[in-house]
Amino acid sequence: MSSEIGKTIKVSIFGESHSNAIGAVIEGIPAGQEIDLKKIEDFLERRAPGRNDISTSRKEPDKPVVLSGIYEGLTTGTPISVIIENKDTRSKDYEKIRRYPRPSHADQSAYAKYGDAHDIRGGGHFSGRLTAPLCIAGAICLQILEKKGIRVDAHISSIGNIDDDSFDPLDPSADMLKNREFPVINEEKGQEMKTEILNTKGRGDSVGGIVECCITGLPAGVGDPMFDGIENSISQAVFGIPAVKGIEFGSGFEGSRMYGSQNNDEFYYEGDVVKTKTNNSGGILGGISSGMPVLFKVGFKPTPSIAIQQDTVDLIEKKNTKVKIEGRHDPCIVPRAVPCVEAAAAIVILDKIYDGQRG
Amino acid sequence: MSSEIGKTIKVSIFGESHSNAIGAVIEGIPAGQEIDLKKIEDFLERRAPGRNDISTSRKEPDKPVVLSGIYEGLTTGTPISVIIENKDTRSKDYEKIRRYPRPSHADQSAYAKYGDAHDIRGGGHFSGRLTAPLCIAGAICLQILEKKGIRVDAHISSIGNIDDDSFDPLDPSADMLKNREFPVINEEKGQEMKTEILNTKGRGDSVGGIVECCITGLPAGVGDPMFDGIENSISQAVFGIPAVKGIEFGSGFEGSRMYGSQNNDEFYYEGDVVKTKTNNSGGILGGISSGMPVLFKVGFKPTPSIAIQQDTVDLIEKKNTKVKIEGRHDPCIVPRAVPCVEAAAAIVILDKIYDGQRG
Amino acid sequence: MSSEIGKTIKVSIFGESHSNAIGAVIEGIPAGQEIDLKKIEDFLERRAPGRNDISTSRKEPDKPVVLSGIYEGLTTGTPISVIIENKDTRSKDYEKIRRYPRPSHADQSAYAKYGDAHDIRGGGHFSGRLTAPLCIAGAICLQILEKKGIRVDAHISSIGNIDDDSFDPLDPSADMLKNREFPVINEEKGQEMKTEILNTKGRGDSVGGIVECCITGLPAGVGDPMFDGIENSISQAVFGIPAVKGIEFGSGFEGSRMYGSQNNDEFYYEGDVVKTKTNNSGGILGGISSGMPVLFKVGFKPTPSIAIQQDTVDLIEKKNTKVKIEGRHDPCIVPRAVPCVEAAAAIVILDKIYDGQRG
Amino acid sequence: MSSEIGKTIKVSIFGESHSNAIGAVIEGIPAGQEIDLKKIEDFLERRAPGRNDISTSRKEPDKPVVLSGIYEGLTTGTPISVIIENKDTRSKDYEKIRRYPRPSHADQSAYAKYGDAHDIRGGGHFSGRLTAPLCIAGAICLQILEKKGIRVDAHISSIGNIDDDSFDPLDPSADMLKNREFPVINEEKGQEMKTEILNTKGRGDSVGGIVECCITGLPAGVGDPMFDGIENSISQAVFGIPAVKGIEFGSGFEGSRMYGSQNNDEFYYEGDVVKTKTNNSGGILGGISSGMPVLFKVGFKPTPSIAIQQDTVDLIEKKNTKVKIEGRHDPCIVPRAVPCVEAAAAIVILDKIYDGQRG
Repeated sequence: MSSEIGKTIKVSIFGESHSNAIGAVIEGIPAGQEIDLKKIEDFLERRAPGRNDISTSRKEPDKPVVLSGIYEGLTTGTPISVIIENKDTRSKDYEKIRRYPRPSHADQSAYAKYGDAHDIRGGGHFSGRLTAPLCIAGAICLQILEKKGIRVDAHISSIGNIDDDSFDPLDPSADMLKNREFPVINEEKGQEMKTEILNTKGRGDSVGGIVECCITGLPAGVGDPMFDGIENSISQAVFGIPAVKGIEFGSGFEGSRMYGSQNNDEFYYEGDVVKTKTNNSGGILGGISSGMPVLFKVGFKPTPSIAIQQDTVDLIEKKNTKVKIEGRHDPCIVPRAVPCVEAAAAIVILDKIYDGQRG
Repeated sequence: MSSEIGKTIKVSIFGESHSNAIGAVIEGIPAGQEIDLKKIEDFLERRAPGRNDISTSRKEPDKPVVLSGIYEGLTTGTPISVIIENKDTRSKDYEKIRRYPRPSHADQSAYAKYGDAHDIRGGGHFSGRLTAPLCIAGAICLQILEKKGIRVDAHISSIGNIDDDSFDPLDPSADMLKNREFPVINEEKGQEMKTEILNTKGRGDSVGGIVECCITGLPAGVGDPMFDGIENSISQAVFGIPAVKGIEFGSGFEGSRMYGSQNNDEFYYEGDVVKTKTNNSGGILGGISSGMPVLFKVGFKPTPSIAIQQDTVDLIEKKNTKVKIEGRHDPCIVPRAVPCVEAAAAIVILDKIYDGQRG
Repeated sequence: MSSEIGKTIKVSIFGESHSNAIGAVIEGIPAGQEIDLKKIEDFLERRAPGRNDISTSRKEPDKPVVLSGIYEGLTTGTPISVIIENKDTRSKDYEKIRRYPRPSHADQSAYAKYGDAHDIRGGGHFSGRLTAPLCIAGAICLQILEKKGIRVDAHISSIGNIDDDSFDPLDPSADMLKNREFPVINEEKGQEMKTEILNTKGRGDSVGGIVECCITGLPAGVGDPMFDGIENSISQAVFGIPAVKGIEFGSGFEGSRMYGSQNNDEFYYEGDVVKTKTNNSGGILGGISSGMPVLFKVGFKPTPSIAIQQDTVDLIEKKNTKVKIEGRHDPCIVPRAVPCVEAAAAIVILDKIYDGQRG
Repeated sequence: MSSEIGKTIKVSIFGESHSNAIGAVIEGIPAGQEIDLKKIEDFLERRAPGRNDISTSRKEPDKPVVLSGIYEGLTTGTPISVIIENKDTRSKDYEKIRRYPRPSHADQSAYAKYGDAHDIRGGGHFSGRLTAPLCIAGAICLQILEKKGIRVDAHISSIGNIDDDSFDPLDPSADMLKNREFPVINEEKGQEMKTEILNTKGRGDSVGGIVECCITGLPAGVGDPMFDGIENSISQAVFGIPAVKGIEFGSGFEGSRMYGSQNNDEFYYEGDVVKTKTNNSGGILGGISSGMPVLFKVGFKPTPSIAIQQDTVDLIEKKNTKVKIEGRHDPCIVPRAVPCVEAAAAIVILDKIYDGQRG
């Protein structure tokens, strides 16, 4: 029932789109870790809307305010809490959303669960806005991982049917991505994607896409068998990002169509490090890191908010009707979701690293 | 760090392939639930090897023994524990596996984590054998769900490149599956799959596949936003089955290539029940059931155990070498994985239903 | 590692004495529960300092601000978060506390755990101030319990060697307590206690005491055997209040000196309700409520902050030295701890009630 | 709802007095820890009945059988499971217990929770027999703690009104205890206690008592503030032992009657180690170890099973009646509870040590 994730560290996310604030409590980070607030803000900026003409023009300042747990640039060892005030919450007839649920939004399922008390304004706790505290928690974990030589990088793998290049599964290079306002490996493909998004927007429609993420520098031996493996936990975290409908590691679903002789990753020594010649396992065997880069892809559905009129129901009069969603909406959520995927992965990896530290 | 899953119910799985026994502790099931042991055995039989010429001929009797928590056919309300003795554990030179890790098995990653103390015999805790206690726990949950009018059914969606028909996402019918020793919807396709598996086996190779699962009868309003949604938790559970590398709900990765106008599920009233005209959401919106059938697909990699010689390393002499895996192995794990997917899903759904019962 | 408690509901407490804010996240409260903010404020007022001449004169306004989860007076079903800003945080040489740990405070043990990064100001996360968010969470739970006919009431059982009357274990009446600014049953004894506290204060000393708490209206059958019993969980919660060093249920340690024939609670029918003739069990048998009033006592040590000079160490120069604690301090924390005990118990009881609601 | 305790390690206890077996699953113990099964058996022997004329003559062989997680004397890193078969389960009219609940047993509260499905035979999951798996888990943790130089020792502090000497709170010596079949510091007092128990038994009555426990060798800095402190977690664990009704740390309830100037523990350096001149804090400040010995006392009620006729109710005919408990019962559970308290404390301390190991 909780909006909480993690075992040795716990990230608890609270807030609703139009409540006074949204935020996160992060427990279990040891004392004395240097945290640069500017880096958190920069990371948040990567998911901010209004950065270009392909995302919603809504202006969210999204200034994180540390309430506790970080003092003079260092973690204190006790719970970290960070909030973002909700300022841009102009009044609007949200009761319409309650009455006429938007197709493929959570309005109807949330109504079934919470009834009339659900804070429907802006989607409430289901809003994509809740990924901001996820990114704050992720940005904190990323700074700690960085000191351990571990990086988490993601890019837009596809928008609609336009595919970016893939990471090299044996030696992914992501240096080019961080400076790119539109994070793709192949900038030509990136240009095509942007055109596709703008065209889609022009039609009042939306489009889905895929994010590919890699984790490098993670040593072998991190993770667990059964239910606390890297795959289990990254999946659990990543499905916390709205609109995610699929995840695959390594060769994933493509590997399901292959033979063992094609898909198996043979071992060899490079110096005294065990490596694999291919990385169809996505760096994870039996839930535990193999020492190869961890690789996974996350599928996002098209934003359900479209300007095109759709069929829906009137929950009060209990009859069929039509709905036309108004207002500014991202025609494609994928570019802004890239740091969210990184954040989710970073939280999980740090949690697993800490969990392995016992002796 | 734990081999445990669930919140209101908890399933903790223990055992190693060649330890004295494997088993599960299931906590949180209320008192007085009727549990038919014969049904548990029948369910286990569906994952048993040696049922036909396409699975390993190894004979595991897999007789579940209830240690506690069920008395005179009823749950007592206190922890249920069930074990299966490991009988077929003839001695063998398992140190070879420790020294020469098998490609795409967990031998190397487990060694990195556990060192020499890892019980490598038969794969230890990483063995597919550990899905037997998962199925026991699942079979218990399924009996309780059944009384609530909820069914969980899965079939082989593909073997290699041969695809079965799909469930009707609006009205999946699974009655034909339970009596089929090889659970496919389209028996002609099933015949092709079996031929493919036998051919693969003949080459000393293995092949992957996909399982499709549906949950019917689940009312709207079950599940949670953020990290405890149905998708999050089913993923966490399903990646506990060895060889799973991907999962997708509803239109999944295909939906990521679509427009919102194509992928959105429009609402309408059927009598006084809200339904959707399509089910690309796979019955889940915002982590919560919509009342439509829950649908997901799980991708399995080809069994890593193949008879073909492969490159590996000698962890003692720290040099490259070759390995040829001997013994009986399933050329395709997918048919036996079908009840495991159902079991994982059943545990999650019952957990979520109980969690929603507060007022 | 976490400042979190509960299973079906979770209360996570964050903040440091001098951080920007302190607060709590409360998850698992179902949607639609009426929450009166005024009642939360009134409850908080009962633990506020400066209400009379026996508590510290420091003025904390302690205005709770709801950030999420309550909308238009109703819980939304998603995480409730409430904070209190820390306003009265004037700068002071807190490095002295870090260097010269105060006897029987957590300064030294916290230093051993967190090192220099510990936010020592005002005691950081160890401050008694953190019981304010505990009281907020408790006040929310109490309002829900009240609608179920369940009350939680505590009084000062003793200050030093002055004892109040006890609750009648068979039929505790607490109506008189809530309106009393100094919550005792016997007001004459209360007057003696106040005198004792003032005398102690005059000497620059402090004094301990005991709080007795009763829970009435709780039906039989709530709680669990083993580690999730009412006793286990109330203890876990109550030791979260600074200065608690002991807890006992029913006849407690006195019962340990008795014979079974004296201590056993014999059953009888009152109408069709099973009751016991005595209540030495404190309403709990096997961790589960018996239907009789739940009764327990909590022992608080004297406030470690005293004005009398004490021996301590200089952690920098690593030598013995003296310390004299300055500033305003409660000579006795017990009166302000009364609502904290009620809050801790209320959270636990609501958690257990929800946990029992499955079928 | 679970019979599980711990965070970085988890101990899950299952079984009923007359089910096929009782046992424990212990997760989170790292690989490669040496575990001597003989030591587990010896530890279990300390809680075994029938060792002398003051405990029940019932013969339980209580032979622990390792099902998984320990291989060739080393932990494998994956879940440890150990069971004890229930052999001495002769049939008896347990329905009488269901119908006529025994005063101060859990029969009535369990009936309220579980109804008729509760496995009432021998007390089911509420039986003192369930402390055997607790002791197994504790014995495993104790062996690991021992290698870290940490000891956990308990003795009978009192039986009825006869008190043993106390541990020296500054330097407790427990070497004499382990070889004593009746674990007291002062053997003369021990003799008096035995006489008291035998006299009580002769009257068909039972008597309560107190156990004192100390943990030595624990460095400063282990534990947490708020709800995961050493006091919180030891309490949560210890109340899992049947008949426990109170716990106090350090000066405990006596400290509640003292002044700060009396109860505070002043610091001084002994060499370069910070020590305290007194140990009224019981080695714990703010939930975290101070480096001084951890000391606590646990109060046990008299065994509720007495041969003297008592008033009870007939739950079927819903009327008042009498009950006379037959069979062999411990007239005082305290001597056998001594290792149970050690076990509970050992599990908690190892859990906290592991939890602190992150960086």
